[in-house]
Formats: sequence, structure tokens, C-alpha cells
Amino acid sequence: MSVIDGYTYGQNATSPVTLDDLSDLRASVLFGPDDEEALRLAGDVLESQVEDVLDVWYGFVGANPHLLASFSTPEGQPVEQYLARVRVRFGQWILDTCRRPYDQSWLDYQHEIGLRHTSAKKNHTDSANAPSYVALRHVIALIYPITATIRPFLERKGHSAEQVEAMFQAWFKAVVLQVALWARAYGDGKEW
Amino acid sequence: MSVIDGYTYGQNATSPVTLDDLSDLRASVLFGPDDEEALRLAGDVLESQVEDVLDVWYGFVGANPHLLASFSTPEGQPVEQYLARVRVRFGQWILDTCRRPYDQSWLDYQHEIGLRHTSAKKNHTDSANAPSYVALRHVIALIYPITATIRPFLERKGHSAEQVEAMFQAWFKAVVLQVALWARAYGDGKEW
Repeated sequence: MSVIDGYTYGQNATSPVTLDDLSDLRASVLFGPDDEEALRLAGDVLESQVEDVLDVWYGFVGANPHLLASFSTPEGQPVEQYLARVRVRFGQWILDTCRRPYDQSWLDYQHEIGLRHTSAKKNHTDSANAPSYVALRHVIALIYPITATIRPFLERKGHSAEQVEAMFQAWFKAVVLQVALWARAYGDGKEW
Repeated sequence: MSVIDGYTYGQNATSPVTLDDLSDLRASVLFGPDDEEALRLAGDVLESQVEDVLDVWYGFVGANPHLLASFSTPEGQPVEQYLARVRVRFGQWILDTCRRPYDQSWLDYQHEIGLRHTSAKKNHTDSANAPSYVALRHVIALIYPITATIRPFLERKGHSAEQVEAMFQAWFKAVVLQVALWARAYGDGKEW
């Protein structure tokens, strides 16, 4: 089994977000047992395509200077090792989104992910010389491409239109839910 | 012409968000001229259905205590006049999302909308005795229902599957874009 650098699932501090907060957020995005089931199927569908999905997402980031800047030195040079290490965790994130139970360990890791986008922890895990945070607006905006680009991959393994739609909706909900959780790490959290 | 209480489009302070910031966000959500065109069509499709859309959204808020709380007194009583005034502006927001050019005036009003969700300005416009802010996490989470519930309304006026899909994607992008802008009003804006 290969170890993923900086992947600390199950070893994080307790999130300030409670399971009750999570329960409310699940209700807001209409996330239920059918979505959990659809995400399990999506995990099976996406497992062999993770690198292809990452190619699309990294291509998108690379084509947008305002996004690539988060992974670049003050001189504007992309930090290749940083990009490479984040990429492996991003791939695992796809599978975690599909397969992990959304429990306390998951909640704790979501907060860790949030912190790693802010000045509290960005760059630390990978000793990167890049900007000290990813602006919250970019994290929110990425809900669109991270959601829309997944559909063709969900369609690629011969599932019915109904199954694809169920997987897609569950994915959309799961992405929105996670961005809402990551936002907790920004600012003082007072009006989060 | 009826006047909408508290609707200050074109009369707001300049947003701290610049047109360059907006341009980056448009790129992040892949928003282009085709989306503007699709939104114009969506405006025509939705115009006669605004009250029906609002019925769905208000039904959803009313069914979720953690959402209804933002419109309720400290004793837990929904503030009917506040809900009613917000509803009229929410209806106008649907049409503005479809029909307004996303220019400086629009940007300024987006920031005003953001402020009205935070302790800076919530309740002021409607003299409401309700919580002093809508938690950012709920605003982000609502991206899902505000997007997903619009599709049946877009399908209802006899447009082709391709046209409906174009309108839906443009709506999805526009909602994500606006939530990213509203987030600017939260906290000190430093890592926004």
C-alpha cells in the first residue's frame, strides 16, 4: 500500500463544526441515503478514471492564471512538487467523497482541508513557497467546474441515464456540502 | 409601476470587488456570452413562473427550522412582514440574474445583497427583529436547492432539451458566481 504524502485522514484535530451542524447542512443540500448509495456507485465508476479527471481539473487550473497563482512562487513559477503532491491527495479526495461515511473523522478532515486553504496551514504540509491562502471566492467558484466536469466520467461505464443522474446529483450535493464546511476555516468563523 | 421595498439597484455604494475580480470569477465558472444569451431566454421562461418558484423556495425554507430561524424572532416566531418583503426582492433577483448585465451596478448590488446577509446590514432594510446574520454556510449550501429546483420551471415552456440544458447550466454558473461575490461581505474580507 502506498502512502499519500500529507494525507492525514483519521489523525486530525476535532473540527469546530459539530455533527448537528453537518446534519443541518445535509438537509440544506437535500442529502440523504439515496445520495450515499449513488456516491458508492460513483466511487466504482470513477476509481479507474481518477487520473483522467485530474487531468481535466489540472488542465483547467493551468489555463487560468488566477487559479495557478495559488500554486506558484512569488516570481510566478508553478511549484511542481507542490502541484504533484496536492494532485495525489486530490485524487484520494474524489474517492473519499464517494466512499467515506460522513462521520466525525470525515468532518475533522474536512476542517483540515479548509485550514490548508487558509493562511493557518496552506503550504505547511508540502513546504511550498506559494501564496499563503487560496481566496475563498475561488474555492466557492470551483463548485461549478468540479461539478460540471464530472458528468462525462459518470456516463462512461454503461450506467442508465437514471443512475448517471443520481450519481451526478449526489456528487453536486457533496461538493457544495464540503465547500460550506471548508469555509469554516476562513476568517474568525463568527458568521460562518 | 410598483416599487419594491428595499430594492436599491443602481443606488448602492461601490463594491470593494473590482470588475477584474469579477472577470476572474466568470472564468472560474466558465461563464461566457452563450450563458448570457441562455439567461435572457431563461428570464422569458421564468417571468410568468416567479411566484411558483418562490412557493417552492419558501416551502423549503419553511420546512427547515435552521433556515427559517434567519427570518424568525428570538422567540422563534417567523416575522411575516419580513418574509413577505424579502420574497418580493427574491422574485426580482430571479429576473435580475437572468436579465441584468453583470456590470459595475450589478456588482455593487451584489455586495449590498452580501451585506444584507451579515451583521453589517441584515434586518436594517426591513426593520426586522430576526437574527443578526444568515450564516455563510447556509448561503453556500443553498446553491444546491436554488439550482436544482429551477430545472422543472425551465422545462415548462416547450423549449428543446438542448435549450433547457443551456439555461440550466447558465443559471447554475450565475448562482455560484453570486454566492462567491456575497461571501465578500463576511468577516474582514482578507482571505476572500
